[in-house]
Amino acid sequence: MGTRLSELASLLPENADAALIISEANRRYYTGFVSSLGYLFVTRNGSFLLVDSRYEEAARDQAKGCTVILFKKLKDTMTELIAQQGLKSIMLEASAFTLTEAAETESIFSGAGAAAIKTNDLDKLISRMRIIKTSAEIDKMRRAQSITEDAFMQTIKLIREGVTEKELALELEFRMRRSGAESVSFDLIVLSGSKTSMPHGVPDFNTVKYGDFVLFDIGATYEGYHSDMTRTVAFGKVDGPSRRIYETVRQAQQNALDAVRDGISCREVDIKARSYINAAGYEGMFGHSTGHGVGIEIHEAPSVSMSNDFILRSGMVITVEPGIYVPGKCGVRIEDMVVVSANGCINLASLPKELIEL
Amino acid sequence: MGTRLSELASLLPENADAALIISEANRRYYTGFVSSLGYLFVTRNGSFLLVDSRYEEAARDQAKGCTVILFKKLKDTMTELIAQQGLKSIMLEASAFTLTEAAETESIFSGAGAAAIKTNDLDKLISRMRIIKTSAEIDKMRRAQSITEDAFMQTIKLIREGVTEKELALELEFRMRRSGAESVSFDLIVLSGSKTSMPHGVPDFNTVKYGDFVLFDIGATYEGYHSDMTRTVAFGKVDGPSRRIYETVRQAQQNALDAVRDGISCREVDIKARSYINAAGYEGMFGHSTGHGVGIEIHEAPSVSMSNDFILRSGMVITVEPGIYVPGKCGVRIEDMVVVSANGCINLASLPKELIEL
Repeated sequence: MGTRLSELASLLPENADAALIISEANRRYYTGFVSSLGYLFVTRNGSFLLVDSRYEEAARDQAKGCTVILFKKLKDTMTELIAQQGLKSIMLEASAFTLTEAAETESIFSGAGAAAIKTNDLDKLISRMRIIKTSAEIDKMRRAQSITEDAFMQTIKLIREGVTEKELALELEFRMRRSGAESVSFDLIVLSGSKTSMPHGVPDFNTVKYGDFVLFDIGATYEGYHSDMTRTVAFGKVDGPSRRIYETVRQAQQNALDAVRDGISCREVDIKARSYINAAGYEGMFGHSTGHGVGIEIHEAPSVSMSNDFILRSGMVITVEPGIYVPGKCGVRIEDMVVVSANGCINLASLPKELIEL
Repeated sequence: MGTRLSELASLLPENADAALIISEANRRYYTGFVSSLGYLFVTRNGSFLLVDSRYEEAARDQAKGCTVILFKKLKDTMTELIAQQGLKSIMLEASAFTLTEAAETESIFSGAGAAAIKTNDLDKLISRMRIIKTSAEIDKMRRAQSITEDAFMQTIKLIREGVTEKELALELEFRMRRSGAESVSFDLIVLSGSKTSMPHGVPDFNTVKYGDFVLFDIGATYEGYHSDMTRTVAFGKVDGPSRRIYETVRQAQQNALDAVRDGISCREVDIKARSYINAAGYEGMFGHSTGHGVGIEIHEAPSVSMSNDFILRSGMVITVEPGIYVPGKCGVRIEDMVVVSANGCINLASLPKELIEL
């Protein structure tokens, strides 16, 4: 972690003496320490984590690469630090500060003779660092994925006529958390029947019926890192057109997976899936992008979309999740999370993708 | 809901043509409609809710008192609305906009010839409206409280030697969500043994032992409204000093509850609990304020603290939650949620407060 802080300090633009990071995710990323509140100053001469009395002991024990400072009155402690370190201009984490918080902070800065830089330049530097994952980070995502897969395999056994989407989602979440997930990656999505055609549907009291698809878009977090997986299973036998949709998505996903490697653009990966779906006659029924980065947040850079020329590099982790959605009828999405490598990718998901008929 | 929007419009200061609300809680409060994304413009000539295609159908069906507008490109739709309504200055919800979001929004406004007001004046207007609860809001909080109490009574039966805090917290949450809670009000707190002395402790693999206090600070949400309750129970018999702490907190809480009524200040309520605890010899061991407002957020105005001269009025909902914390030994907190009324208060909690020994 100490290394990450030094790296960020070395990336600070000339006009900035320090960066101030307040989001829980980024404080954790840079110091390894988890708390609901904290102020992390990163300067060329060292980093300083300001915490209140709730966190003092744990922070001194666990926060890496920075000096922990207890604050009673935030204003006094910040003012002292700014003076002591001679800070004149401090970049704010623009995606985390609300206008209210920024106004309070600027007022403290201004009393201490420092100015706030409120552009999103700091956020860009952080994103650039976070986009490449270390093997330790990938191990955590692998563990999150494994918890997700185990819970999924247990939960699909509970599918029967009349079970609700909500019940299945709740059972999945309980299993994940019982087996060591810190949390769920997002509100778990379980949809059945015609609701599977809604890419952003929410589980409700809709009940599963024989012949339905049941779509699971699920993930767990482990030590701060997310997993993300989608599987669509059949309860009983689905009809021919539904099966054709499933097989089309499966092949489209495989085509995109086959394309992922260091040096390819996000656009090209998206096109691999999209062109196959369009050619199979489902044009206009794949209304989202093919994937996104994942890490300490469920949606990170890069966006794997048609409009993104960004070049994938080894160590990036992205999802590959094409889908076909036929309104009023059904939808299918299949999603894996993969690590980009020199000659291809490493799939963090291990579950098969042949249609499961329960 | 329509009435709430008209009321807010009537409260806009002269220099503002509109308010722009983006937080999920406040969009729901003013329109009754729940979505993860949306832009609510409140003007003197009507209100407009901008949503994307995911939410269009549901918003037209459920959003009250406003015109629903579908946006594909937010910039285009906002620009058109600003021109059509002749808006020149628009107040932003400063506690919800991040610097990044505010910069994007200001850039759209400026292209449309409008200016953004970035002070927290809008937030103050909203808080002033939300602080008084209607009977419909109180009914929802009552329901959230009832779900919480049922889950609590079921879960304390699971207390046995060796059960972990984490297991108890998870079982509680599952029971709440199975019986209709939308969510939990916050990460549920279950602490045992000497950890009860930490007002902000987090449940972990710490196991319950005979003779321990087990502290539950828990709550559920129902239709967007929160409940908040703390109970401290004994596993087996606690020692004499622990029991004296319990009885002191119980009486301190009763004293504060007896003081709550329309017209009393927050400070006076706090002092009622605090002076009793201090007089009993526990000075310095009650390190937080006596309570806080609750509603669509778990912490709302007013803060029931020694430094707040704010006068309580009928229809406000606050918690009353004194505690005594003896570091390394034990802690006790007892918390109810009450509605301020003309001559006293209505307690939304129904569980007894005599020490439960399991």
